[in-house]
Amino acid sequence: MTSKIGIADTTFARIDMYKIVEKAINDHGVSSKLERYTVPGIKDLPVACKKLIEELKCDIVIALGMPGPELIDKQCAHEASTGLIQVQLMTNKHILEVFVHIDEAKNDKELFDITYNRSYEHAVNALRLLEGKESLSKLAGRGIRQGRKSVGRLGE
Amino acid sequence: MTSKIGIADTTFARIDMYKIVEKAINDHGVSSKLERYTVPGIKDLPVACKKLIEELKCDIVIALGMPGPELIDKQCAHEASTGLIQVQLMTNKHILEVFVHIDEAKNDKELFDITYNRSYEHAVNALRLLEGKESLSKLAGRGIRQGRKSVGRLGE
Amino acid sequence: MTSKIGIADTTFARIDMYKIVEKAINDHGVSSKLERYTVPGIKDLPVACKKLIEELKCDIVIALGMPGPELIDKQCAHEASTGLIQVQLMTNKHILEVFVHIDEAKNDKELFDITYNRSYEHAVNALRLLEGKESLSKLAGRGIRQGRKSVGRLGE
Amino acid sequence: MTSKIGIADTTFARIDMYKIVEKAINDHGVSSKLERYTVPGIKDLPVACKKLIEELKCDIVIALGMPGPELIDKQCAHEASTGLIQVQLMTNKHILEVFVHIDEAKNDKELFDITYNRSYEHAVNALRLLEGKESLSKLAGRGIRQGRKSVGRLGE
Amino acid sequence: MTSKIGIADTTFARIDMYKIVEKAINDHGVSSKLERYTVPGIKDLPVACKKLIEELKCDIVIALGMPGPELIDKQCAHEASTGLIQVQLMTNKHILEVFVHIDEAKNDKELFDITYNRSYEHAVNALRLLEGKESLSKLAGRGIRQGRKSVGRLGE
Repeated sequence: MTSKIGIADTTFARIDMYKIVEKAINDHGVSSKLERYTVPGIKDLPVACKKLIEELKCDIVIALGMPGPELIDKQCAHEASTGLIQVQLMTNKHILEVFVHIDEAKNDKELFDITYNRSYEHAVNALRLLEGKESLSKLAGRGIRQGRKSVGRLGE
Repeated sequence: MTSKIGIADTTFARIDMYKIVEKAINDHGVSSKLERYTVPGIKDLPVACKKLIEELKCDIVIALGMPGPELIDKQCAHEASTGLIQVQLMTNKHILEVFVHIDEAKNDKELFDITYNRSYEHAVNALRLLEGKESLSKLAGRGIRQGRKSVGRLGE
Repeated sequence: MTSKIGIADTTFARIDMYKIVEKAINDHGVSSKLERYTVPGIKDLPVACKKLIEELKCDIVIALGMPGPELIDKQCAHEASTGLIQVQLMTNKHILEVFVHIDEAKNDKELFDITYNRSYEHAVNALRLLEGKESLSKLAGRGIRQGRKSVGRLGE
Repeated sequence: MTSKIGIADTTFARIDMYKIVEKAINDHGVSSKLERYTVPGIKDLPVACKKLIEELKCDIVIALGMPGPELIDKQCAHEASTGLIQVQLMTNKHILEVFVHIDEAKNDKELFDITYNRSYEHAVNALRLLEGKESLSKLAGRGIRQGRKSVGRLGE
Repeated sequence: MTSKIGIADTTFARIDMYKIVEKAINDHGVSSKLERYTVPGIKDLPVACKKLIEELKCDIVIALGMPGPELIDKQCAHEASTGLIQVQLMTNKHILEVFVHIDEAKNDKELFDITYNRSYEHAVNALRLLEGKESLSKLAGRGIRQGRKSVGRLGE
């Protein structure tokens, strides 16, 4: 059966993260229906994700956002993340949060690379989670990072 | 069909933010019914917004507030924001939070300008969200700011 | 119809805030029935307020507390405030939080004055909210403070 | 009718707080049935308290914990407290939180004394709350502390 | 009756914590059925745990994670912990959180040892909690630590 993947994004972000996720899903040849929901900022994402799940019947959602560098932006990201977890608990569906903090990067080039990789990798994670609860188990405890180099497993 | 827009504001704020939102909606020639709810401070906004949605049947709500400059005011803003997200998840309706922190501005003139622009722009965002989930998609990832100059898209 | 006003207070506070609220309500000649609920500290207030609303059928509640000066007290105040907002969202009733932080004042006299004014003014706010959602609208955006001098409106 | 008092404690704490609460209740000659629930740490307390109320039918619960001195311990205490408030709102029953932070005391002797007094006094508070909502009102606003000297009322 | 133990782990962690928990349960000769659920990071754990309880009918869950050293990682851990407590309150089942912060250890060897001990000990705690609410009471107030040396009881 074709699964339905919700993608929520913002006008605040400085990069078209939706396009990256769309490419990742196409690259993997998965026949999924995508539903997009665009909101102003990250604090608007939780309800958009809930509507994608409850009203648009998405099986999983990817929440894309790019918090600013100020203290107040960190606070917003915290509130948004808390909301995204609440939505998951209200719906029993996964929402993969892809947040790239603008001050994670030293320059625009690095910001783009982190954003590209993190968005792409989490889109792949979403596809894996749709396959079942142990689909990612072979990668468990391996220090996998999204948007950064993975750090590997200890004790091997 | 005419939509119903709820607007919650406070006696604590130093600017009549309601009037700005009302102007924005009139400027766009939208025939909406406005419902106003005024409370003392931002921590009273969540339940006011919930009542606007559940008892007054508003389709969307704009929550207007102006947190003070002290640490305790930041804390209040965090509690209010958390509550506003919860209301959205309980009702599946958007609430656009328009908070202007008094210490964002260097002087009264700048405070007024930020407040005017942010209130106006988020009123327009509310109108867009009422049109549907992809109404803002053409603006996604473009670094749009409300109350400040937008910063533009990277990678174009 | 006579409304029922719940008042929750604590043994931790250093001032009998209940008495001030009672006076404010009497001063305004409102025939309301008061229900009092006394708990040890501010973290006990949320459930007391919920019981005032659900079991004692109060129409609105005033929550009185006086957080101490330590970091842990600030944390308690945050937890209590978050709980008070949750109760409002569970019941669709207003709870006016009247918290006076002991370190807001430079001395006992100032602490008493802030406590007196804030308690009194929020009791009046409760009476206004009982009259309807636009009862406070004429005061919106006027920089009203409780316990401190109001700061006035900008842009007039 | 005999009331049922739930007591939740942890293996993490360094003092047998349960024994102190038990003594306080016996000292007051109250015929209550005690139900004990022991968990590893303070973050396990919220669900234990909920089970004491819902599955063991306790009328009130006392939650005993001793957060460590590190920043992460403060964080845990905050999460536990938030959860304890949520349980109260889900059940309409009081949970008296008795947390003694290990760094509140300068030495082991002081830690023991604070723990003894706070546990004992809150057990008494629990008995009072079982008697009714105004049972503590004569002590309201008197600056009562548990585990420390009370600070008294201002303005008398 | 055979109990069912859920184990949620992440690809972010640098150690295969699942294997340690599995060994602890086998060492204790308990005939339990284990259900594993692997997610990308700790913020994905709450919904995985909820699904283990509600969809896979687990009696108890162990949530395994390894937060990174940055401030943002601390924030994520806080959000995850808050979510894990919420799941427990929604299901009345225990979730034992086993989080090892990467900066708890001075080197890889110590990180491995802490992780091994904490995972192993909390697996044993899970087995105890399955036996009943007073199964851990003989260890209450004894300053038990997981992953570190226990600190013992005061006042004996």
